Amino acid sequence: MGGLGKRTDCGDARYAGLEVAWSSDIVETLETTLAGGWDFAVAPLVHPRYRRPAPSALPRGTFQPPFTRSDLLLTSSQWGSQIVGKASPWIDCDSECAPLARDSAAALQQELAWAAHLGLQAVVLPLPATPLRGANYARILNHTLGGLASMALWLRIPAMAPGAASSADGAAAADGSSADTAAAAAAAGEGPSSLAADPWEWWNQLRFLCNHHPRLGVMLELGADLPSTDNLERWRGEPLKAVVVPTSVFMTNKRGFPTLSRRHQDFLADCFTRGVQVVLSGNAHHMPPEAPGGNAVAVGPGGAVAAAAAAEHPLRLYWEYLSFLFRKLPASSEQELVEMGYRDYLQSPLQPLQDNLESQTYETFERDATKYTTYEEAVYRCLLDRVPQEEADSRVTVLMVVGAGRGPLVAASLRASVRAKRRLRVYAVEKNPNAVVTLQNRVVADGWEGTVTIVPADMREWEAPEQADILVSELLGSFGDNELSPECLDGAQRFLKPDGVSIPQAYTSQLQPITCHKLWNDVRAYDDIEHFETSYVVKLFKFHPLAPTQDVFTFEHPNRAHCIDNTRSIRLVFECMPPAGTVCHGFAGYFDAQLYKDVHLSIHPPTHTPNMFSWFPIYFPLRTPFYVPQGSKLELHMWRCAGKHKVWYEWAVTQPLVSPIHNPGGRGHFVGL
Amino acid sequence: MGGLGKRTDCGDARYAGLEVAWSSDIVETLETTLAGGWDFAVAPLVHPRYRRPAPSALPRGTFQPPFTRSDLLLTSSQWGSQIVGKASPWIDCDSECAPLARDSAAALQQELAWAAHLGLQAVVLPLPATPLRGANYARILNHTLGGLASMALWLRIPAMAPGAASSADGAAAADGSSADTAAAAAAAGEGPSSLAADPWEWWNQLRFLCNHHPRLGVMLELGADLPSTDNLERWRGEPLKAVVVPTSVFMTNKRGFPTLSRRHQDFLADCFTRGVQVVLSGNAHHMPPEAPGGNAVAVGPGGAVAAAAAAEHPLRLYWEYLSFLFRKLPASSEQELVEMGYRDYLQSPLQPLQDNLESQTYETFERDATKYTTYEEAVYRCLLDRVPQEEADSRVTVLMVVGAGRGPLVAASLRASVRAKRRLRVYAVEKNPNAVVTLQNRVVADGWEGTVTIVPADMREWEAPEQADILVSELLGSFGDNELSPECLDGAQRFLKPDGVSIPQAYTSQLQPITCHKLWNDVRAYDDIEHFETSYVVKLFKFHPLAPTQDVFTFEHPNRAHCIDNTRSIRLVFECMPPAGTVCHGFAGYFDAQLYKDVHLSIHPPTHTPNMFSWFPIYFPLRTPFYVPQGSKLELHMWRCAGKHKVWYEWAVTQPLVSPIHNPGGRGHFVGL
Repeated sequence: MGGLGKRTDCGDARYAGLEVAWSSDIVETLETTLAGGWDFAVAPLVHPRYRRPAPSALPRGTFQPPFTRSDLLLTSSQWGSQIVGKASPWIDCDSECAPLARDSAAALQQELAWAAHLGLQAVVLPLPATPLRGANYARILNHTLGGLASMALWLRIPAMAPGAASSADGAAAADGSSADTAAAAAAAGEGPSSLAADPWEWWNQLRFLCNHHPRLGVMLELGADLPSTDNLERWRGEPLKAVVVPTSVFMTNKRGFPTLSRRHQDFLADCFTRGVQVVLSGNAHHMPPEAPGGNAVAVGPGGAVAAAAAAEHPLRLYWEYLSFLFRKLPASSEQELVEMGYRDYLQSPLQPLQDNLESQTYETFERDATKYTTYEEAVYRCLLDRVPQEEADSRVTVLMVVGAGRGPLVAASLRASVRAKRRLRVYAVEKNPNAVVTLQNRVVADGWEGTVTIVPADMREWEAPEQADILVSELLGSFGDNELSPECLDGAQRFLKPDGVSIPQAYTSQLQPITCHKLWNDVRAYDDIEHFETSYVVKLFKFHPLAPTQDVFTFEHPNRAHCIDNTRSIRLVFECMPPAGTVCHGFAGYFDAQLYKDVHLSIHPPTHTPNMFSWFPIYFPLRTPFYVPQGSKLELHMWRCAGKHKVWYEWAVTQPLVSPIHNPGGRGHFVGL
Repeated sequence: MGGLGKRTDCGDARYAGLEVAWSSDIVETLETTLAGGWDFAVAPLVHPRYRRPAPSALPRGTFQPPFTRSDLLLTSSQWGSQIVGKASPWIDCDSECAPLARDSAAALQQELAWAAHLGLQAVVLPLPATPLRGANYARILNHTLGGLASMALWLRIPAMAPGAASSADGAAAADGSSADTAAAAAAAGEGPSSLAADPWEWWNQLRFLCNHHPRLGVMLELGADLPSTDNLERWRGEPLKAVVVPTSVFMTNKRGFPTLSRRHQDFLADCFTRGVQVVLSGNAHHMPPEAPGGNAVAVGPGGAVAAAAAAEHPLRLYWEYLSFLFRKLPASSEQELVEMGYRDYLQSPLQPLQDNLESQTYETFERDATKYTTYEEAVYRCLLDRVPQEEADSRVTVLMVVGAGRGPLVAASLRASVRAKRRLRVYAVEKNPNAVVTLQNRVVADGWEGTVTIVPADMREWEAPEQADILVSELLGSFGDNELSPECLDGAQRFLKPDGVSIPQAYTSQLQPITCHKLWNDVRAYDDIEHFETSYVVKLFKFHPLAPTQDVFTFEHPNRAHCIDNTRSIRLVFECMPPAGTVCHGFAGYFDAQLYKDVHLSIHPPTHTPNMFSWFPIYFPLRTPFYVPQGSKLELHMWRCAGKHKVWYEWAVTQPLVSPIHNPGGRGHFVGL
């Protein structure tokens, strides 16, 4: 009940499960399981060999005994939190033997209805008897999913198809379902053999047939051999809910304790941090050595305790080891803890031109010390470049902060001025009257009198009393230009001297295609097209990039073009990296801004400014996820469009298939000028 | 920070506030307030005498100092949880003096925008300078409410108009706003004088103008005199968020401590249990007497401590007294604690004919021991009536439970049989295959073999092997017939003997008009007509009945009519009880069932079966709330309609105004057959 450890930053991953065999005395089975440290039992819903005829195949009025034990054996809160059900392994809804197919369909519906009746959190489903040949199975799952209030279905899939690696052997489930069906799949040989040999494809077919239902997830069963890292990483964007670790994949350390290979350890650690639950299956292959009073290597200082505990539960040593792996995860940083609440949470981008930010929003952004020291550095270098030492005392540089907010860039500029020993006259231009109150109060409180002038105005309309040497702004969105920095700075540059400098000098956006099943489903939950034509600021977490990023749009300031055109258009061709097929749910976007010369601010993964947290990536969804075959090219078109009162993006995919153009005319989402 | 006491069953009422005067050093003011035990301060947003011209009235470029102190003085979490703002008292948006009206409107908008910027939970609003003449004021509030994300507005209203009671005097707010405006209202004399003298009417006009906005609430200021209990109870259905208790209404007990009258105490206790927060206002009128080491009467054993504490904060004694009132509230019963989560929570009625109940739902209902002992009593009396003592051994009564669920009525009937010493043969008819599994398992587990036959069938279709003496069912909904008990029992009575008995024998529904601002807004939040044409099962909490209940529809079983007609139609005329005007948001419904002779089950308030919790009332909403003038009649039409595959209700009001007929043809809601 206490979980694998006390840390709560891994979500449900702190709760580990144990796969148990059928027992009519489920009360005792559950008690034993909990006493062994496990938090829940994965238990058959019906005796796994009880193949029963479909009611429709029976003469009317035939007496049928109860098909399973009573729900009264446990309380509904026990069923709901401590039992995950397993559907029967003999079920084969797509069998060519009609009676078996009929009985299977009836039994599957009966078992899923029973599990929903019990209020279980999840039911583990076997693979279709022949993977990639499970359309009827999917039809029944799909039908059931449509009527479920909250229960999840976990499709049990081997991490690697049997036979795909030399040493893969009998590391199978207690009832052998996965291994059997996987072997069948490998033998089936329908379609390209690479598909039949890739369990991800088996999942993908069922997932598409069930129309990406948010309560259909994956339970991945590890073997002694693991597939390549690339292959495993594909699951990061998928609804991976649980990982099964069979006892047979454990090795034995010098002292006789169970241990896992380094790769298994790393994969489990990754699962823990992603909130994926671990389930142990199989019988004990390790008994604790005669306790010599010394410490067990793997378990740490609890060796003697572990030996005693093992006497209580034959699988206790495995629990101790999993708990050890869980507890030794590096602690989350403070920033990670703060960001945790934002993971995969869709936020609409700010509309700073239309809305006034609130005090709390300013407070959050102002906490990002890295961002402001980087701005300080940019202003510092610019001051040194523009004002030679001999003019340090005589020349006053005019610096205007446009969009001053509550003043952090004013303060950073003043710090740069002190460091550079160059004199400044600062104008702080801000249109939000509430932030102006803060600025006005800071003039007195922070000793800005005589140096800083507060200007309560929209920078696009203000008539400046003099021209500026330096124009400092932070108008960037997660996709660079998406909060209309170009339009604002174009409007403000009329009061910049001909040789004046804009900080930032330029910025470029980037995109890459990603798998992100959960995020896409969250967009779909709005149940309209509009939300598929909106971009979102998201702390991407359960996602997987399909290709390296590519640059999209670049803007430079000041823009001395005779006629300024901030519309853009681009065609990008991504070479998809994965070693096998995958799925695309949309695109992740980033930006890199050149503040001044080589001083950059970036959320572009390859160059991300360390410890900066003001921006999360942006997500451009697609109305329909699509399959990306191995080695496929992915072609994306992206437009930045502008009207008199608004700016918006449109996007479309033309390879490997053709999508509709998203957000035509800004109908779904635009940013108002 | 700890609140008035540890109990958490009164929601936010455990947090008490203190009204403070303007201070530029809000940091120190807040620290002192918290140190005195208060959880939040009600503080002016701007210096209350700072009347400033509207920006539109100033020449462009006029320098304006910051209109208030900086938001940086407190963290946004302090602003958000420890400060409730107050709008300036001089604001008079409806003044006949045009410059004052113009400046007022600008200042009100500015202050509300500032409060939203700070992220305050609420802002206290003064009454319009002339109550019932605040349309322009309402326009600005309404406009602001439309743009608010989460902040609430609390309209400050005196519980009683000054002059309405002989002894009402200067029990006013620190800035005197309520008392002044109330006096003005009483003097204004527009409309019927009873309206001008009833502060509820002032609230009601603003609330209707702001279209019942869910974030516009009431802060009620108590005077030394309180209005009648009937009058105070009207607030139970209104969004009463806080109560202001001026120090001037406190009396002094024998030992010199502040104390409140019994009526004030009772009203505050009622507020606490309804989650209404208390705010103290005014200066200290009580100093602790020289502590003689003895106990203070009102405060309990903390007298000496209290005296010491008062030295820290001049109003500490009042806090101690409020805390004492809070802590002495009777503890909630276990049932109340369970039901707390359901208060004012809209549930769609069950569709037991179409959906199968889940295990947890059965478990919850089966916990209601009272219900089943009442059924047991009904079966017991019926057995004694039907089988004379001399036939006790020879005659076997055939009892059929139709809709047996997991068997609680079977068990109750068997207990009755043992008590009555009469023999039974039981058929348990149940259409839910999951509940049938439980029943089948109970046959063995509970020793029902030979007595109980499980019948997995719909009672409307089952072909019974013999006729029943007693037909037991529990098919009642919160409105009696709304889960189609009549239709089901009509279908089942064909296997009842001509002299057989149905338990229940009859049931009748009741209705009454109610005020329920929150509930109505929750229905409106769905933003469609359909939800206004649906009835809801609700644990009614923040509501106020306007008239005694009246009977609606009655059904009797068995129904031996030649042609059974379960449609019904009724016109009800309610005489509204309140001593003054009120508002109607819809109707609360109940039922009373006669199980057998004088054994009843009832959720009808006057006859509610004690300790029975299986049914909450039902709520029939109205699309538009309407004002009910004092002494008005309220005429309601209600229909029970039936089609081939469904049953539904329609309803309409024809006095004091005419509503549309709700739910024509069952378009919004019906129960499927």
